[in-house]
Parts: sequence; structure tokens; C-alpha cells
Amino acid sequence: MHSPRLADLGELEVLRRLQPFCAKGVGDDALLLSLPPEMDVVVTTDILVEDVHFSEQTMPPRAVGWRAAAVNLSDLAAMGAQPLGLTVGAALPAETPWHWLEEVYQGLQACLNTYGGRILGGDLTRSAVKTLGITALGAGRPSQTLYRYQAQPQQAIIATGLHGASRAGLALLTGELAPKNIATPTQRQWIAAHQYPTPRFDAISILQALARDHNIALAHEIACMDSSDGLANAVIQLCQQSGVGAQIVRSQLPIPPGLVTAVGRDQAETWTLYGGEDFELVICVTRTMASALVTQMGGHCAIIGQTTNHQEIELVENLDDTGGLPLTLAQSYQHFS
Amino acid sequence: MHSPRLADLGELEVLRRLQPFCAKGVGDDALLLSLPPEMDVVVTTDILVEDVHFSEQTMPPRAVGWRAAAVNLSDLAAMGAQPLGLTVGAALPAETPWHWLEEVYQGLQACLNTYGGRILGGDLTRSAVKTLGITALGAGRPSQTLYRYQAQPQQAIIATGLHGASRAGLALLTGELAPKNIATPTQRQWIAAHQYPTPRFDAISILQALARDHNIALAHEIACMDSSDGLANAVIQLCQQSGVGAQIVRSQLPIPPGLVTAVGRDQAETWTLYGGEDFELVICVTRTMASALVTQMGGHCAIIGQTTNHQEIELVENLDDTGGLPLTLAQSYQHFS
Repeated sequence: MHSPRLADLGELEVLRRLQPFCAKGVGDDALLLSLPPEMDVVVTTDILVEDVHFSEQTMPPRAVGWRAAAVNLSDLAAMGAQPLGLTVGAALPAETPWHWLEEVYQGLQACLNTYGGRILGGDLTRSAVKTLGITALGAGRPSQTLYRYQAQPQQAIIATGLHGASRAGLALLTGELAPKNIATPTQRQWIAAHQYPTPRFDAISILQALARDHNIALAHEIACMDSSDGLANAVIQLCQQSGVGAQIVRSQLPIPPGLVTAVGRDQAETWTLYGGEDFELVICVTRTMASALVTQMGGHCAIIGQTTNHQEIELVENLDDTGGLPLTLAQSYQHFS
Repeated sequence: MHSPRLADLGELEVLRRLQPFCAKGVGDDALLLSLPPEMDVVVTTDILVEDVHFSEQTMPPRAVGWRAAAVNLSDLAAMGAQPLGLTVGAALPAETPWHWLEEVYQGLQACLNTYGGRILGGDLTRSAVKTLGITALGAGRPSQTLYRYQAQPQQAIIATGLHGASRAGLALLTGELAPKNIATPTQRQWIAAHQYPTPRFDAISILQALARDHNIALAHEIACMDSSDGLANAVIQLCQQSGVGAQIVRSQLPIPPGLVTAVGRDQAETWTLYGGEDFELVICVTRTMASALVTQMGGHCAIIGQTTNHQEIELVENLDDTGGLPLTLAQSYQHFS
């Protein structure tokens, strides 16, 4: 397909072509945005760089856009907020084809159409490296907000879905993992997990309804975060910020079906704990509510362990075992390491 | 000064060191932020790239931070909003010295301390090119919001300050302009205009007070934008979005003192009209209010022309002359051109 380069169009024409994607009012110095009554604004930001977060090999531009929106919306979901929309800062080489940017915007738009919100503003500049700075705004009631630091001992730890699928999808896309002997639908699922992650607003809706039924204060009796930096990382952050320990049960690890066969048990466990970028939620909540949530959620939502009043954050064979394998931040994905 | 590189510290340690700069609550998935009663949220974003917006030659890291905050706050000011704060996405090479990032944050903080607002969140990643994605949030009353499209014919056009000083400062820093025969205080002013621009919240406060006194509806009878892309660009955007024309009077051009002597009249006029990055405000308002605003503002705030009910946007020798020199967007700074 022939597509002009951004350099062929010039900034003003590129901005004109992006205008239809944007909320009315974008094009002024800033955008004024009303919040629903009694709501506070919730804000989160991510910066995405080619060959770090995406590449031609791993992601078509539509997926770059979807994913850029989804990772930010996932942070809003983890706080119990509803999306209002996001701003898009794009720094791009002058030789970038227009259709690349257009498809990124189509991906952003598709994700916002699915979960709510609009494109609230943008900025466009040139750079040697394709870079997207995304900031998402949401609306949340203070009493319904979920924090990381509210985990209490003896709560169940829930993962809303499988972990390691995004890492396996990346491995398929880069050739690190050979596709032979992996069923085609399984390959597709893993690749989709990497390219088109889904923020779990569905879990939050159910959690909020259950909290009403069980008369539980969301902001005080539940801890939640998303698993963008890996399942182990999420468990560790929740525990350290709450001053509790955790036991994750090996047999309850949310390993994607087929992954042990494809890469062996050790690798599968490592990717599930440390692979990252699955954008599920990890939730600490009373056992009663945990059971209700898992039942209502269905799918791969499951209790994977419990919080404790010890220091240790570990992988065990059975709950209340001692001397499990410590989970570490060191194996989580870290920039500059 | 010895400073470890980001690669020496690792992401977790860098984030730990940045924590003191951030509002309480940063470190969760997102930040919940209350708005003052009856206020809406106002949002704007910019992405800043090394060797496009800043360089070692033109700006110390403290100025990079100050400027990154100031350009976004200037957009809030232009909308009549008060700053709540900003998010910072930083994509940086692993070999970046820690003190570079620390000084950027000190510059951001200094600007927020001066004009209001806090650091509301951030994201850190590696990239081959130093890139900052900044999104500012403000609070504004819908009735007090200023838009670009509300200019009416026969209004005065005000520039809140000098234009071309930032461009002259850049020329001094890059060596494009030789410093000899330019007084040292003048050089310092031009360089400061480039490195440490000041968002004009002071003009907005006076404008809001005057509007109350004159019983003028800010959101309906005044047009305003900042001059980040140049004075001519601002006049053209205001006129085109409002469906009016404009006459800017050559003798009223807000040329910095000393600039004509330093670079000649033609170059001085060009830099004043098209240099960009002065971050002043351009305001269309009734003549009565314009006079009151200029008197109360003092300094270099001045009426530079008038809006008309014609199509033309032009530079004239005297108001109501015909056949002036058309102002153009083409000479304004454009990416990808």
C-alpha cells in the first residue's frame, strides 16, 4: 500500500488528519473535561519506545495503539476508576509512513471504544526513535478506590487470569520459541495476549458489586494492582506496601494451558511469575469475597495463595508450609539493568 | 562531579530516588486527585526530544525540567486554568548520569513550586534518545475558561510580553548569533527567555478580575492562546478558529530591546513574528478591557493590533490600511517539514 511519509505531509496536515480521532475541543491549548458528580480524577502515564516495548517484528501498528491504550487503562482499572480518555504524545521519525500513525490511532480508538473514553489531546514531534507518551485520565469515587497498601493477613490472593501468555506470545513473535508442536489456536491466544491485552474492568465491576453486598469498604479492606511487571512483582509490591507476607501455591500458579508442554515446567513457572505484561489484576480480599469473585468471574480467575502475617513472600507446595522459594523483584523486568 | 549512571543504579533505585519529588500516593497504579468544588479538569500534553527541543549546548538539565513544566503550564494558563500538577514519562539512555535526571526533576519542581501543582506520576524506560512526555492537569471553571475561537471583530489584540527573545537566546547559545556588541544583561535576558520561560498566570488573574468588573463573560467574549509556536501562528490560529481577520501594526511589534541593533530590522521582525517559544499569551478582547489589562500588567504587555471582519491576517503600517503583508503559517516552526 502506498502511504505518504509524515515528512511528505508536514505537521499541519498530519494534525488535520488526526483531528477526527480526537474529542471535540482538542486543538485548543488544552481540553476542559467535566467529571461525573462526586468523582475525583485518576491519572496514570506510560512512555513506550520502539524496540523496547514494541517492534515491527512483534506488533503491527494497530496493536501498538491498542496496547498503548490498554496498559494505561489497566492502571485505571487497578485503581477502581472508569476511563475518561487519554492524551497521546508521539515523537516519530520524519520518514514514518502516515498509515503507521493512522493505524496506531485506530488501535487507540478501538481500545477506547471498547472500554470507554476519548482521545483528549496530543502532541506531535520528530525523533529518531518512535516513542509514544500516553497519559490516561479516569474518574473514581474516593470510597471505591483500590490501593496497593491495604492488604491484610489471611486474605486470599486472586489473579484474574493466566500469566505468562504474553511472554510466550513474545517468544513466538521473536522466534525465541519455535511454533512446532504448539496448536495454532494456542499460538494465536499467546500472541493476542501480547499484542491486545485487555484491562480487567469486568473484574472491578463485579468486585464493586460484591463489596456492596458484603458491606466491605473497597478503599480500606481490599488491595489491588495490575500485573504489568509480572505476577511475582505484583504480589511483592502489594505485600511490601501493606506490610504483610504471602504464600503462592505452586499447583495454583495460573500457567497458560499448553505452556508446560511447550517450554517445560521450570520455564513455564518462570514466565508465569516473572514474564510480565499480562495486565491482569492481582487482588487481596477476604476468602468469602474471593470465592464469590472467582465464581462470578469464571474463566481463568483463581485464588493462587494467601497473605500472611510473616515477612516472607514465597512459593510453596501447600498453604502454611514453611521454607518455600522466595519470590524476588530481581527477576522482574527492570529497565537499566 | 561524579554521578552514577542510571544503568549503575537500576530502575528500582532510580524510582526510589525520584519518590521524594512526587506527590504522596505516586507509586500506586495511578493517582487519585480531588478537584476544587465546581471545577472541571483541564489537560494538555507535550513530548520533548533531545536535539529537537533541548540539547547539551542550549540547556542545562535544570532548564530542561523547568521548561518542560513551563510549556505545559503555559497551555493551562492560556485556558484560564490553575495548575494541579503534571505526570512525567522519561525515556532515557542507560548511560544517562543520575544527576542529569535529578536536575531535570529539580527544574520541574522549581517551576511547580513557583506556579502551583505537584508531580502526579511518572514512568521511566530506556531509549536511545532522551525523551520527556509531560502531561499537565489543571482545574478550571467552565465559565472562566478561555478558548481560541471566541475572537470578535474590532477587538484589540494583546501580546503579554516580548517576542523573539527566546529565538535570539537560542541563536546566542548555538553560536548562530555572535555575542559581541550585545550588552551582557541583554544576552542573559534572551538566554533566560529560552531556558526559563514563564507561564503568564499573572495575566490571567488580572483578566479574570477585569472581566468581573466589566461584567464580561470570559468564555464567550475573549479569545486567548499561548504563543508557543510564534506570535504570527497565535494570531492566525485565533483568527481562523474565530472567523475573523487581523491587522498587526508594524510599529507595535513586541520586538525585544536591542534586537534590531543586533540582527537588523528584517531579522528582528521575523524572529518576533515567527521565532516561537516565547510562551506569552495573545488575547483578543474589547478595547476598554485591553487598555485596562495593559495598564495593570505593565512591563512589555501591549496592544499590537486589532481583529477585523475581513479575511486578511496581515502586518500593516497603520490600523485600517489596506494591502498589508500577509502573515503565514508556513514560516512558523513545523515538524516534519
